[in-house]
Amino acid sequence: MKFATYHDGTRDGQLWVVSRDLSRAIPATGIATCLLEAIETWDDASPKLAALYERLNNFEEPFATRFEPERCLAPLPRAPQWLDASAFLNHGRLMDKAFDNPPNPEFETIPLIYQGASDDFRGPLADVEFPDDKLFIDMEGEFGVVLSDVPMGTSAEEAEAHIRLLVQINDWSLRAVGPREMRAGFGFLQAKPSTAFAPVAITPDELGDHWSNGRVVLKLHVEINGREVGRADGREMHFSFGQLIAHCARTRRLTAGTVVGSGTVSNADRAAGSSCISEIRVIELLDEGAARTPFLTWGDRVRMESRLPDGSAPFGVIDQRVVKA
Amino acid sequence: MKFATYHDGTRDGQLWVVSRDLSRAIPATGIATCLLEAIETWDDASPKLAALYERLNNFEEPFATRFEPERCLAPLPRAPQWLDASAFLNHGRLMDKAFDNPPNPEFETIPLIYQGASDDFRGPLADVEFPDDKLFIDMEGEFGVVLSDVPMGTSAEEAEAHIRLLVQINDWSLRAVGPREMRAGFGFLQAKPSTAFAPVAITPDELGDHWSNGRVVLKLHVEINGREVGRADGREMHFSFGQLIAHCARTRRLTAGTVVGSGTVSNADRAAGSSCISEIRVIELLDEGAARTPFLTWGDRVRMESRLPDGSAPFGVIDQRVVKA
Repeated sequence: MKFATYHDGTRDGQLWVVSRDLSRAIPATGIATCLLEAIETWDDASPKLAALYERLNNFEEPFATRFEPERCLAPLPRAPQWLDASAFLNHGRLMDKAFDNPPNPEFETIPLIYQGASDDFRGPLADVEFPDDKLFIDMEGEFGVVLSDVPMGTSAEEAEAHIRLLVQINDWSLRAVGPREMRAGFGFLQAKPSTAFAPVAITPDELGDHWSNGRVVLKLHVEINGREVGRADGREMHFSFGQLIAHCARTRRLTAGTVVGSGTVSNADRAAGSSCISEIRVIELLDEGAARTPFLTWGDRVRMESRLPDGSAPFGVIDQRVVKA
Repeated sequence: MKFATYHDGTRDGQLWVVSRDLSRAIPATGIATCLLEAIETWDDASPKLAALYERLNNFEEPFATRFEPERCLAPLPRAPQWLDASAFLNHGRLMDKAFDNPPNPEFETIPLIYQGASDDFRGPLADVEFPDDKLFIDMEGEFGVVLSDVPMGTSAEEAEAHIRLLVQINDWSLRAVGPREMRAGFGFLQAKPSTAFAPVAITPDELGDHWSNGRVVLKLHVEINGREVGRADGREMHFSFGQLIAHCARTRRLTAGTVVGSGTVSNADRAAGSSCISEIRVIELLDEGAARTPFLTWGDRVRMESRLPDGSAPFGVIDQRVVKA
């Protein structure tokens, strides 16, 4: 199934079911008003949503309309919780060099995950506001999962059964603040403004073999101002989503609608480019002696799209412009 | 005004208005189903809630019943966001010694605030479950504020006008995990299980002069298994709640219902005792050469109550038992 959330003046928006090819959509009226409600009542709602999705794909819903990404909020405009990992170790190694971080002896065995703000996720085409472009505005292209209720102590093996939906994410970041917040030990706050999401959340089965071992095995194409800078594949995620969920649920339960992110998609092969500017800059520094790609400023556009081999984009497109608050 | 949330089978619970003396209560039927809805619609809801509160206090509500804390969830069983500071520098200095943290040059000028989980706040009398008592189970007695929508860039001076309610908090902590998570730089996750709240959330005017300079000027009485270990006063909070809010809103807006915590209430005067065990232990270590107060284990009880000079407890009482998950 595929879902989107249209702006309707409420904080949670209105749930729409989107056709497999993202051409058409229909509101989930009478099943769930918003996506969070659908996830909270999944056992009851999902068979009804599946039936509606099938009718929509079969052109049996006369009231379906063209799918309009420009009406979309984030699939979950607000979520109970947002936990974002750094599960691509290639990214972690480069960022440690960029930030001159001290060595982390558990780098390969204990996932790094920060608790982020989930009260104000941004839509796929919304302008993103920042107070100051001297804060080194950066993007982070990621994949994520939306969970059902997860009991405390759930194992990595059990955790995958709690994954309801997959999402595609741009975790906006302010690099001038991040290193100070890391050193202070309390984690990211000012360094992580509101996170943005591609318009369509999908059930894992929609990816077929491209959902594998608890990983989204897709290339994430990232463009800055129309120039592709990244095409890294989700395959190299060191920790699976199951492992990330188990880490988060070790000392607490997670409630339905919790979103867990992969962290910046990153590959060891330099030809894959990068899903964030900091990575590009540290590679330039290592290879050429100086970083030359600038961070983002007012008017810059960031586009992110993951593609199946047939060229289709299962999550739709993130295409945002950086603006002054 | 004073508010509580009764368990009614929903995730957000049912909003009740509580009398000033916490003796009686009445549901806010027809005004707001839950406290979050009341905060989101405050301009419309608050005059109606104020009228109901006045009638309740004047014994003019025939359907009022005895206030029953045993029916209470946290005032906000889930909130859009939870941002917890360490605004009592006496606590911060002691914890830096306890954890052997490196010096933080901005200790007195930039508040330390971590982003916590807000999807699963615990009620005042609920058993608190932990997976393992070797994780050094500890409490943190705090005050907090619940906010209206706060625009990005709000100043400390403007921020106080966004404070809708005051709350009293026990920020449960696992000290065996905290130092590792601080060193890793991504902030607390496993070290901060679900946070608990006293049953009653109150508007700042309810405290009279005891809400002053953006601080809750009340003693917080903390007991472990019936023995009082802390009676620290909120007066010594180094950063005001206005300053904390401004810090949080520097690079993003905060949505209505966001909770900001003070961090462990702590006074320089050793006679005030401590609102967490780690502080007690580091003082023992400094004064007596060895920590002897143990962390908590199964069956231990923690009670927290802040008191006005007349002995009344404006937020009610947190009284929880530690149990194995």
